[in-house]
Amino acid sequence: MVYITRRERFNAAHRLFREDFTDEQNLEVFGKCSNPKWHGHNYELFVTVKGDIDEKTGFLVNLKKLSRIIREQVIEKLDHKNINLEVDFMQGKLASTENLAVGIWRELENRVNELGAKLYCVKVTESENNFVEYYGN
Amino acid sequence: MVYITRRERFNAAHRLFREDFTDEQNLEVFGKCSNPKWHGHNYELFVTVKGDIDEKTGFLVNLKKLSRIIREQVIEKLDHKNINLEVDFMQGKLASTENLAVGIWRELENRVNELGAKLYCVKVTESENNFVEYYGN
Amino acid sequence: MVYITRRERFNAAHRLFREDFTDEQNLEVFGKCSNPKWHGHNYELFVTVKGDIDEKTGFLVNLKKLSRIIREQVIEKLDHKNINLEVDFMQGKLASTENLAVGIWRELENRVNELGAKLYCVKVTESENNFVEYYGN
Amino acid sequence: MVYITRRERFNAAHRLFREDFTDEQNLEVFGKCSNPKWHGHNYELFVTVKGDIDEKTGFLVNLKKLSRIIREQVIEKLDHKNINLEVDFMQGKLASTENLAVGIWRELENRVNELGAKLYCVKVTESENNFVEYYGN
Amino acid sequence: MVYITRRERFNAAHRLFREDFTDEQNLEVFGKCSNPKWHGHNYELFVTVKGDIDEKTGFLVNLKKLSRIIREQVIEKLDHKNINLEVDFMQGKLASTENLAVGIWRELENRVNELGAKLYCVKVTESENNFVEYYGN
Amino acid sequence: MVYITRRERFNAAHRLFREDFTDEQNLEVFGKCSNPKWHGHNYELFVTVKGDIDEKTGFLVNLKKLSRIIREQVIEKLDHKNINLEVDFMQGKLASTENLAVGIWRELENRVNELGAKLYCVKVTESENNFVEYYGN
Repeated sequence: MVYITRRERFNAAHRLFREDFTDEQNLEVFGKCSNPKWHGHNYELFVTVKGDIDEKTGFLVNLKKLSRIIREQVIEKLDHKNINLEVDFMQGKLASTENLAVGIWRELENRVNELGAKLYCVKVTESENNFVEYYGN
Repeated sequence: MVYITRRERFNAAHRLFREDFTDEQNLEVFGKCSNPKWHGHNYELFVTVKGDIDEKTGFLVNLKKLSRIIREQVIEKLDHKNINLEVDFMQGKLASTENLAVGIWRELENRVNELGAKLYCVKVTESENNFVEYYGN
Repeated sequence: MVYITRRERFNAAHRLFREDFTDEQNLEVFGKCSNPKWHGHNYELFVTVKGDIDEKTGFLVNLKKLSRIIREQVIEKLDHKNINLEVDFMQGKLASTENLAVGIWRELENRVNELGAKLYCVKVTESENNFVEYYGN
Repeated sequence: MVYITRRERFNAAHRLFREDFTDEQNLEVFGKCSNPKWHGHNYELFVTVKGDIDEKTGFLVNLKKLSRIIREQVIEKLDHKNINLEVDFMQGKLASTENLAVGIWRELENRVNELGAKLYCVKVTESENNFVEYYGN
Repeated sequence: MVYITRRERFNAAHRLFREDFTDEQNLEVFGKCSNPKWHGHNYELFVTVKGDIDEKTGFLVNLKKLSRIIREQVIEKLDHKNINLEVDFMQGKLASTENLAVGIWRELENRVNELGAKLYCVKVTESENNFVEYYGN
Repeated sequence: MVYITRRERFNAAHRLFREDFTDEQNLEVFGKCSNPKWHGHNYELFVTVKGDIDEKTGFLVNLKKLSRIIREQVIEKLDHKNINLEVDFMQGKLASTENLAVGIWRELENRVNELGAKLYCVKVTESENNFVEYYGN
């Protein structure tokens, strides 16, 4: 069993806040990430799948197919978008990196598993100092 | 004469568009960067100053003072902000990396020169694939 | 359950040696790292915690609080210090990256767990070619 | 128990193809990686070993010895070589990153374990967007 | 006047050698880079253009157009290719990074200048330790 | 004319201070960099030379020879050393990155020019946030 990881990137705007909080409460809990006029990031997404090597190709999965799935299921929905307002799988959730990693996992799981591999880890890097990993449970 | 460079970072939202364009025209000229609901980046800012080494300290400039000036003049205005809506020195300008580099230069020039050095270059990195440099003329 | 990682940095001097060795023995075992007049590194510290997402905030932990704990417990003791001479939790130990990772874990464990998350991994990078990870047992 | 990782690098040429495929079939399965005239990469290799800290040295393993083993067993065979034509442990295998990671593991396992540590992970990075990890089973 | 830089990447095989040298002479002059069975690299290409900001768009050049020109003129010819055997603009030249930078400049100059900007620098990175810059004269 | 750059690295201890200052004065001017018990860095050194391409080899200079000169003249004197106490060309100077860049230039200039190229720039990176460049006058 081997693990292969594909990196993709997206740039998006977001805001951390609760509608049932005042601006002051949001500032207290979420700091400057609560700015009502948004801010944004260059996110990096690392998708790791695991499985056995196909003797015929030497591949665990065809990386072009994996990349296409990540782009269709995730990047096209997030890149140059507002995570709070425009991303279907993040509606009703706080736009934190933690929730983003879980949401991306759910978008990918079925499509990746159809490739004959198993989704193992979704890692989302928000800045050079912060990243989140989700392993599906 | 030596050159010293200080890196600072800021995360911001922006949008490339002209008010006198329709959404379709904006999309044609600015692509997905024209998204009306914003997107954002982790910007990196590299500020280079030049001058002679002070024999007493071995420094061209005190980097703590240079860093403080960059933070006060630039980072506090840009970090976790919307460049189009909230940054005074970008009002009335397209929020491109090119205009950002020129705008940051103007915010820094006088304050940096008061340190006894000369502002030499402002470099703004928008993504791992794109950056702009401005040398002041 | 998700995992979130915070990076912090510190610059420190150290020396690898045993007092009960001669300089020649130290050189044989520790190589140029045994230089009696010290050398140093830009260390990177990656602290990973695991736990459940707080539905109210979307956070596993508040990263500002995690960062503050890391700075108070670890960075302030190590940054711009001599690891052999000045760092309380490294007294009586060889100043190796391995011992540093274990020592940092012990400084962090209680304080991090008070945040409602569980310390999962301490990773210390000594150079672009070497790093150590410790998972607590 | 701690984990220590050593990075080494090698530059090599390779080609993904099956002799029992036509050029067209190879292109369909392997894309431009099947180019009959070869292409190449700057590979990065991360070797992780695990074990207990030796109280006498503060080391899990002596990194100089680990580095020497990696160079002798792997880097000298791969660096500035053609993986398909010149690397003994890759003969008869597709020159994929997956097979490379497994092949490197087998070259390293015995020699690393003689150091008194246990080989834990071989990670091979083919580009900034792709990497493979193998844990030995 | 501002400077904007676009990064593109390509993976290629090459060999440094002279046909009028024996293998031994090639080894003496070019070292392991003369391996007759090729080796390869992940090259990074940084193309810098200079000019004035277009007030209507805030751009020096449209980066999508610049990227398309670089891909058409350079990347498609080099990516997943053998520089010695398959790249038209390198025929009859030693496949060094120096010659590559000059060759890429010549492929780009006219097309870039048609964008209304001026090609300023071509930088080619062969490894994390080596890069070449060419400014056109 | 082309420019080629070689990166080398060294790890060293240093301290910023004046003997004619009290500890309090040193702390005021040099901050925590004045710690009497030293601290240290992973320095990166980028040496750029310029000249014409040798038609016979395709090289500006033989990078192996350039690397050997940098190691003999600079790295062996600095790596795993105390800059204040052990580096001959830094005696009597403040151990700042600025003075280090100038000192390294002087160590390299004659030997590099003997290669038939001209030393163009010495760049010293002290941390991911700070670097100094010196062009020789």
